[in-house]
Amino acid sequence: MNKTEQLDRLCIDTIRFLAVDAVQKASSGHPGMPMGAAPMAYVLWTKFLKFDPSDPHWPNRDRFILSAGHGSMLLYALLFLTGYEEMTIDQIKNFRQWDSNTPGHPESLLTEGVEVTTGPLGQGFGCGVGMAIAERYLAALYNTPEHNIIDHYTYAITSDGDLMEGVASEAASIAGHLGLGKLVYLYDDNHVSIEGSTKLAFTEDRGRRFEAYGWHVEHAEDGNDLAEIETAIEAARLELERPSLVIVRTHIGYGSPHKQDTAAAHGEPLGAEEVRLTKEALGWPLEPDFLVPDEALAHFREARARGELLNGEWQSRFSVYEENMPGEASRFQAALKRELPDGWQDSLPSFKTGDGPLATRVASGKCINALAPKLPQLLGGSADLAPSTMTLIEGGGDFEPGSTGRNLHFGVREHGMGAIVNGMARHGGVIPYGATFLIFSDYMRASIRIGALQQAPAIWVFTHDSVGLGEDGPTHQPVEHLMSLRAIPGLVLIRPADACETAAAWREALKLYRRGVPVAMALTRQKLPVLDFADAAAGVARGAYVISEAAGGAMVIDVILIATGSEVHVALEARRLLQERKIQARVVSMPSWEMFEEQDEEYRQEVLPAAVATRVSVEAGVTLGWSRYVGGAGAAVGIDRFGASAPGGIVMDKLGINAENVAAKALKLIAHEPGKAAWDL
Amino acid sequence: MNKTEQLDRLCIDTIRFLAVDAVQKASSGHPGMPMGAAPMAYVLWTKFLKFDPSDPHWPNRDRFILSAGHGSMLLYALLFLTGYEEMTIDQIKNFRQWDSNTPGHPESLLTEGVEVTTGPLGQGFGCGVGMAIAERYLAALYNTPEHNIIDHYTYAITSDGDLMEGVASEAASIAGHLGLGKLVYLYDDNHVSIEGSTKLAFTEDRGRRFEAYGWHVEHAEDGNDLAEIETAIEAARLELERPSLVIVRTHIGYGSPHKQDTAAAHGEPLGAEEVRLTKEALGWPLEPDFLVPDEALAHFREARARGELLNGEWQSRFSVYEENMPGEASRFQAALKRELPDGWQDSLPSFKTGDGPLATRVASGKCINALAPKLPQLLGGSADLAPSTMTLIEGGGDFEPGSTGRNLHFGVREHGMGAIVNGMARHGGVIPYGATFLIFSDYMRASIRIGALQQAPAIWVFTHDSVGLGEDGPTHQPVEHLMSLRAIPGLVLIRPADACETAAAWREALKLYRRGVPVAMALTRQKLPVLDFADAAAGVARGAYVISEAAGGAMVIDVILIATGSEVHVALEARRLLQERKIQARVVSMPSWEMFEEQDEEYRQEVLPAAVATRVSVEAGVTLGWSRYVGGAGAAVGIDRFGASAPGGIVMDKLGINAENVAAKALKLIAHEPGKAAWDL
Repeated sequence: MNKTEQLDRLCIDTIRFLAVDAVQKASSGHPGMPMGAAPMAYVLWTKFLKFDPSDPHWPNRDRFILSAGHGSMLLYALLFLTGYEEMTIDQIKNFRQWDSNTPGHPESLLTEGVEVTTGPLGQGFGCGVGMAIAERYLAALYNTPEHNIIDHYTYAITSDGDLMEGVASEAASIAGHLGLGKLVYLYDDNHVSIEGSTKLAFTEDRGRRFEAYGWHVEHAEDGNDLAEIETAIEAARLELERPSLVIVRTHIGYGSPHKQDTAAAHGEPLGAEEVRLTKEALGWPLEPDFLVPDEALAHFREARARGELLNGEWQSRFSVYEENMPGEASRFQAALKRELPDGWQDSLPSFKTGDGPLATRVASGKCINALAPKLPQLLGGSADLAPSTMTLIEGGGDFEPGSTGRNLHFGVREHGMGAIVNGMARHGGVIPYGATFLIFSDYMRASIRIGALQQAPAIWVFTHDSVGLGEDGPTHQPVEHLMSLRAIPGLVLIRPADACETAAAWREALKLYRRGVPVAMALTRQKLPVLDFADAAAGVARGAYVISEAAGGAMVIDVILIATGSEVHVALEARRLLQERKIQARVVSMPSWEMFEEQDEEYRQEVLPAAVATRVSVEAGVTLGWSRYVGGAGAAVGIDRFGASAPGGIVMDKLGINAENVAAKALKLIAHEPGKAAWDL
Repeated sequence: MNKTEQLDRLCIDTIRFLAVDAVQKASSGHPGMPMGAAPMAYVLWTKFLKFDPSDPHWPNRDRFILSAGHGSMLLYALLFLTGYEEMTIDQIKNFRQWDSNTPGHPESLLTEGVEVTTGPLGQGFGCGVGMAIAERYLAALYNTPEHNIIDHYTYAITSDGDLMEGVASEAASIAGHLGLGKLVYLYDDNHVSIEGSTKLAFTEDRGRRFEAYGWHVEHAEDGNDLAEIETAIEAARLELERPSLVIVRTHIGYGSPHKQDTAAAHGEPLGAEEVRLTKEALGWPLEPDFLVPDEALAHFREARARGELLNGEWQSRFSVYEENMPGEASRFQAALKRELPDGWQDSLPSFKTGDGPLATRVASGKCINALAPKLPQLLGGSADLAPSTMTLIEGGGDFEPGSTGRNLHFGVREHGMGAIVNGMARHGGVIPYGATFLIFSDYMRASIRIGALQQAPAIWVFTHDSVGLGEDGPTHQPVEHLMSLRAIPGLVLIRPADACETAAAWREALKLYRRGVPVAMALTRQKLPVLDFADAAAGVARGAYVISEAAGGAMVIDVILIATGSEVHVALEARRLLQERKIQARVVSMPSWEMFEEQDEEYRQEVLPAAVATRVSVEAGVTLGWSRYVGGAGAAVGIDRFGASAPGGIVMDKLGINAENVAAKALKLIAHEPGKAAWDL
């Protein structure tokens, strides 16, 4: 070995043993992946990756994603060694401990330098595709022949597990279709999965499959041959018409005499004795643990000077851009900060009763198209349902191989869409949305969740939000989905009752975007009257509000009817029926539980006074959860079964989502006595 | 055209116009797919498919799956024309109406002859793989060199959407790996998706991709050329080492002058005028609608005689089998009826306090291995987590290319696993299970749901069921998943508190299997004491039970603590703390909401008497939903945020899942007055 080779080896082994020691100290973690993948990561981070440890948010940095998130120590070691300030050796010694920034799997919210939260396999793979899409979109939006403001690569290290996951298959097909040439993925091909050899379940021809998707595939046969890896990455970078997969043959647990190339190296510490043997085998000092040779550190830390230089060059370029194109430059910077232009809200349409009946998905489409001219950073698409989800930006152009417009066509790939939109949101500079039927939120639930976990502010447009969609039947009729989405921490669900509430929902969605909160909208397929309630906007902003007071006023309420979305109309009709019986009902429209729960106690009491315990909720979904608001003395009208195929109105009616049933339930509660309950409408 | 050709054409157009007319009459549906795919379906159903319309459940029938479920009228037309009794012309006229057996998408629960419920794309594709696995397993189990009892093909018609979905990608990779040669899929390659040409989003090389998975790929360039289709299917059937994909170039809306080859033919009626023009274009009488020419019907109905013959031959073979191998024959028949052998329950292990502490996943593994010798129809596997989910049947052998054992290796493909296990359950004759971490139930949620919808009795083994899993962190820690699974109609969730409850959970899971109810089990990673409660088995069977009575007896209960799974131990410790303060707490273990809700009112009152309104629930998950049991006067201890990476006990403790917090909450409820609430433990 010459000196350079010696230094390279020293640096690589520093990564390896930081991982080995951290996992050993934590008595928990995945040493094998970092041990095998350290060389490719070293080559990538020292020879190619453009980043500035002193400025982790430098907008034009290359993005790096560790899709194989279980190998988190690889990433933490790189962040520490290259000089990210918050990543200290103490944090690494605190790997997987409470309050550290070195959790079991990388979390972008916790750790500077972690671009996306990964761990659940395939998610990082898909996010990278989203980042490359965002990069291309921003480049098209801001660059000019004279100014190159956004121009970066997106790299990832992916694993066998990533490549097996359907979400990655979907994202890979989209990336190949779009020809995302600045996407370069290294595949840590180590032949071992948790149950044993990949021969057990993963014998497909990966290279050929990716070629079929339209990818450029490179091979590095020896995962320790730095020159070979470098050549392959260079070839991948030079290919700008297709995304690239560099298949690197590695050895899990490299260097461990007894565990290399076995599943035992995957998910548990090597054990003290094997750590010793591995250090001996690779010629590493047995003491101290967490050894970082000065020479290695110095070499890694060159990243700082390199980063400052690259960043500085870019800052200079950007200064010229600012001078020449001040409007674009300030819009660019505002977009990165998630600021919205003055007066953006004014473009939202207002609806009048005469505009109806109108499906809320249609109203949503009008909102998108009203916002689009004001918000060039808004782009998105649907999983092959745009004509139904009404999410097309008219005149926005298509994001396709030959054009970089605002309408993405995800194909029938909900999960891929989910991960991609998360990646776009995490890239920054864009407001991304993804759309499908509410039922298919199940297909992408893992992405919705990990988006909420990392506060990737996507806007999910879920239409066809109840059995009211009708004939397509129970395979397409969501029942449990509203409540299941409410159950996800950090996600806000908004289910507007009419066109006016829909406009307000879009306003709130964008406000939440600014706070980094992802939003799911539930919208109807069926037409609904426009309620044109004077204060819908203010009401929606508070999550729930009195949309129709009891006829006699707030002091004489017999029952509160609480409804969401299309069922607000049912509640309003039930109020009328009750009124005929001299029963005073207040109707509360509750488009968003999460937003209501953010309100102060006073407002919540105002809407749902404790004194009125007689309450009936109406929602065309499972009743599970509604006891939170109707309490022990109330009743929940809902659908605790699967739907059925028939015209939507009939299904609603047959399943009891109608005013008569709601009024009857209210009367029964009020009557108390069995005799009075037998109320015949 | 010669006479045969004329008859073929007549039959094919009969299918086409039944679909066109039914969709037109319903004002809803998907005419284009049946119009394009009718020829391939006709060839398959008249030349290859072994089935007996008079005996839809004939065990050795070929399985046919319309994975492109939106083309349901294609299937209903075939069922009617070939003579399935329940499928009448009136049902077809009632397409997509309340109470018909012709719903918008095929539902196996509603309609004889529908093998699996389809519509959500990719699910049928995956189910077919499961059916081929079940077939191969049963053949290995029951066939002998002399007796061929199970020997059938599994066919499907799949669409662009199916092939785009990740669930299908995963299932395809598994099928290719396993070399499921008796799987023959026809791909309706019509170049059109909802948003327009497949060029918008689906330009990958499908054939090459499937070859990369290890499939045999055939092409039929003209979807109206019956001979070409027949040749391709024949070649597919002859290839027994690899699954086959027959790519058939079709034209959506074939024959419609203005809508053929357009997205407009996909999801809406052609319209009266276009129906007329299409009939004219294809030389079909304009009147009456729903025309079924006698000659066509007679030709289709030959399926009955053919079916009786095939079925009869098989019955004869089976009679000989019964004579020679009576034990096997009766076991086979019992398995098809989901009967379990006498004494199967006796094999379940019993656990004593001394056996612990024991993770419930470990106890579950012992149950699986105790049941396995008694239940040869039990097989399953994990999505590359078997060593963690403890689902390996020791000595059961692997289900692999060269061997047909009981341990399936799904790879890191949860969604594919979900669809495959559903298909196995729908095939019959096997008790299939699928396992992964509870967090990854999100990846396969669409399959769990459609399994519940069609009562496909799978057993889902979900381990690592709370933040108690510790260091892997919030990406791996389920929080909302217990409640989200409870929200799915028709699914039973069981979360046992210790090894004894786990054994009881397996007993109940198998009893539910017999009723066609799928079950999800939530099991711990962490060790738990064995409670060895005398009546755990009876208690679990009722969903909830008093596991520890208030010290003073049922008449003096101050508070009821309701807990599930690992939190039962927290509740028991809280009871002790309260007891020290002379507070009488009853502890209710509630492993299954669904099973508890099936109990009569008397029992439910016995466990949760209305008189005791002071209740505290404890579950290491979202509190959403718990107000159902704790009511307005109670409190829910849970986790309404994401977890964190740290040792499990620490995470539990930091997030308030500990006895002190539960006891404090109980005291606060009891104290009423603010002063008393300030209780310092």
